[in-house]
Amino acid sequence: MRFTRTADPQDSELTTQRLEAFSDGVFAIAITLLILDIRPPDLADGVHKTLAAALLAIWPSYVAYVLSFVVIGIYWVNHHYIFKIYQHTDHLFNLLNVFFLLCISFLPFPTAVLGKYTLDATACQAAVTFYTFGLLLPAVAWFLTWLYASHHYRLIDRRLAPEFVRHLTWQYGLSNVLYLTAVIASWINPVAGLVIAAGLAFLYLLPSKPPAYRDQPVP
Amino acid sequence: MRFTRTADPQDSELTTQRLEAFSDGVFAIAITLLILDIRPPDLADGVHKTLAAALLAIWPSYVAYVLSFVVIGIYWVNHHYIFKIYQHTDHLFNLLNVFFLLCISFLPFPTAVLGKYTLDATACQAAVTFYTFGLLLPAVAWFLTWLYASHHYRLIDRRLAPEFVRHLTWQYGLSNVLYLTAVIASWINPVAGLVIAAGLAFLYLLPSKPPAYRDQPVP
Amino acid sequence: MRFTRTADPQDSELTTQRLEAFSDGVFAIAITLLILDIRPPDLADGVHKTLAAALLAIWPSYVAYVLSFVVIGIYWVNHHYIFKIYQHTDHLFNLLNVFFLLCISFLPFPTAVLGKYTLDATACQAAVTFYTFGLLLPAVAWFLTWLYASHHYRLIDRRLAPEFVRHLTWQYGLSNVLYLTAVIASWINPVAGLVIAAGLAFLYLLPSKPPAYRDQPVP
Amino acid sequence: MRFTRTADPQDSELTTQRLEAFSDGVFAIAITLLILDIRPPDLADGVHKTLAAALLAIWPSYVAYVLSFVVIGIYWVNHHYIFKIYQHTDHLFNLLNVFFLLCISFLPFPTAVLGKYTLDATACQAAVTFYTFGLLLPAVAWFLTWLYASHHYRLIDRRLAPEFVRHLTWQYGLSNVLYLTAVIASWINPVAGLVIAAGLAFLYLLPSKPPAYRDQPVP
Repeated sequence: MRFTRTADPQDSELTTQRLEAFSDGVFAIAITLLILDIRPPDLADGVHKTLAAALLAIWPSYVAYVLSFVVIGIYWVNHHYIFKIYQHTDHLFNLLNVFFLLCISFLPFPTAVLGKYTLDATACQAAVTFYTFGLLLPAVAWFLTWLYASHHYRLIDRRLAPEFVRHLTWQYGLSNVLYLTAVIASWINPVAGLVIAAGLAFLYLLPSKPPAYRDQPVP
Repeated sequence: MRFTRTADPQDSELTTQRLEAFSDGVFAIAITLLILDIRPPDLADGVHKTLAAALLAIWPSYVAYVLSFVVIGIYWVNHHYIFKIYQHTDHLFNLLNVFFLLCISFLPFPTAVLGKYTLDATACQAAVTFYTFGLLLPAVAWFLTWLYASHHYRLIDRRLAPEFVRHLTWQYGLSNVLYLTAVIASWINPVAGLVIAAGLAFLYLLPSKPPAYRDQPVP
Repeated sequence: MRFTRTADPQDSELTTQRLEAFSDGVFAIAITLLILDIRPPDLADGVHKTLAAALLAIWPSYVAYVLSFVVIGIYWVNHHYIFKIYQHTDHLFNLLNVFFLLCISFLPFPTAVLGKYTLDATACQAAVTFYTFGLLLPAVAWFLTWLYASHHYRLIDRRLAPEFVRHLTWQYGLSNVLYLTAVIASWINPVAGLVIAAGLAFLYLLPSKPPAYRDQPVP
Repeated sequence: MRFTRTADPQDSELTTQRLEAFSDGVFAIAITLLILDIRPPDLADGVHKTLAAALLAIWPSYVAYVLSFVVIGIYWVNHHYIFKIYQHTDHLFNLLNVFFLLCISFLPFPTAVLGKYTLDATACQAAVTFYTFGLLLPAVAWFLTWLYASHHYRLIDRRLAPEFVRHLTWQYGLSNVLYLTAVIASWINPVAGLVIAAGLAFLYLLPSKPPAYRDQPVP
């Protein structure tokens, strides 16, 4: 008997498990690289008379470090949360995930800009706008991935309750609106923009809603 | 028959296993990044006539590298030790762990400051105070996590002997007191502060006490 | 009865699984390190009047970041694809893989050069040539590894259809020719060189051909 | 019936598996960080007229990168080889391993020094001496770990043939002697020192001797 064994097309795609492991690596590295953007202050330029004063003067770098650490940490936690809901992958889904990781890996740069220019009166507004824009990027990538995967239950668990799926769509969409608001607000008032962005980050410190399932088994 | 399957709230939280894997990543990265803070010396400024002299002159950077490497290495070993004792996680526990990792990731910065300013007579005191403060931070985060998890056996193995639990509470509390002593001592005498901090680190090179269990099974 | 148990020589070599895990680590780190080459712009030199202008002026760094991120991301995906086909390892195969990882780890450097000198009229051509050469290197290492492993089915799945094996040989060989074309084209016209290299990268965003197997079982 | 369940002291120590996973992380990070020490050349100082010339002029950095990459890569391969032989761990063994990883993580620094000062007539000798010393350090740590673990078969597989154990002791001891020779030779002639060190590294590219076992089962 002759036969042609053609591999399942799915086989040439990444499993969710493999994607999660790689993403965990990127999260861990990006979160740990943040500190490299804080350099020991140089006393030779004479701006600060003592090291203590110089170390205190770069407090915006510490704030930026903590804020970005918390943001990436929350994405890491939420990534595990959402990958319990994603059950399959396909090629476009994988590409969207690579785009999301690209945005996460980018975050140390706007963080460094924010840390460096927060106290510079003329550059502060641009620094905050750039930073909030840097926070908007992964939120957009996350939302696009969700929209693609949840559309007609394309890649998500079919047993999930429709109202729960709608709830997540609203939540992620609202995050995008709020980060965009932070970007726009920062044009008018940098402090307002930063407060919105930080408020949103700390709001995500609350536990995520546990998945809800349909009342009846899927026929 | 209709039914609503609501997922176990625990499901939306990280397991201890996942938390350990992510923490291991952060430990490995933070420990390896330490070397990036030692830069090849620049002979162009004419301070040192030979490369050999310049390489010897930055000996405080080597000492700071070894000390921080040992400290992070010990936290890594102890993290595995303590996660045999932690049996469950909850949301606040996870947040406390993220805070602990934030403190570990921060360590390369005070290490770089210590390496750069130890030999600077006017800045040495501030550098040591900042470094010992940097060592105090993860000790505080570790202690808070332990207090939260061990309170009424909230997240730890219920079979552990109460005296063993008290032993760890005392040990971790004492570490905090000693690191705080090092911070304060460094104000008066930088060498004393550094000796206390280094002594504490090397004390932790001794093997940890193996967990002790109750004489009788938990009813 | 006397016997000498000599370990299987294979035992002293790495398994494909171990090689994959280590490679994943290098991929994740190299991809995340790319951002470290984009530094917050310095306004002190007076070239740009505002931070916004300075952040926009380094757009080539963003393009280089995205391009190299995509290239490394694709290699990561393809690495998993090809390691479903590789079934054994031997010593020379492992060395070829180390050479491939050496080329991947090298990429952040030409990426930084491209970002820094794209807008410099006199250096742009050399920057693009160097970058396309940097992209050629891992393609060559990949091709050599494939040629070695697939020669007479040395290390690959024996059930694979010969035409499928030839297909991959042609595909990887063609990639080498195209990257080499990009290097040469960049001497004449940097834009042309970059367009070829970027086009090739984005072509690889298409899903890989699933493995095809022989019509008959291997005798 | 009353009973006291005291945990096995071994429980509070790391398993070889855990140690291997952490070491793999450190190897992968250290090997990938090497490239960060090669910075895009600065044309502003006018030393080199073209970018092409500047990129060629830093060829010692490329050589240093390749050499250190190969050295760390070989240690990674040998680490897996030797951990098939190590069967147990104890506290001192773990500390010796942390010391070994400290030496591996240190390597990017002498690599950067070698890359920067090879072409500097007055600093070249010191740079090579420092680099070969940097290569000696992990060899010493490796040898000490082996001596401790293999002494009276303390932590190694008891079935290994005594002559095989002696073979490894000689091999690792000889490596130490040769690296030390490279350090001393570099005082007289930097090129000679570097050739010995590089030759030793490339010698290790040959496959390791597979473990040999006793003729008779251990009684």
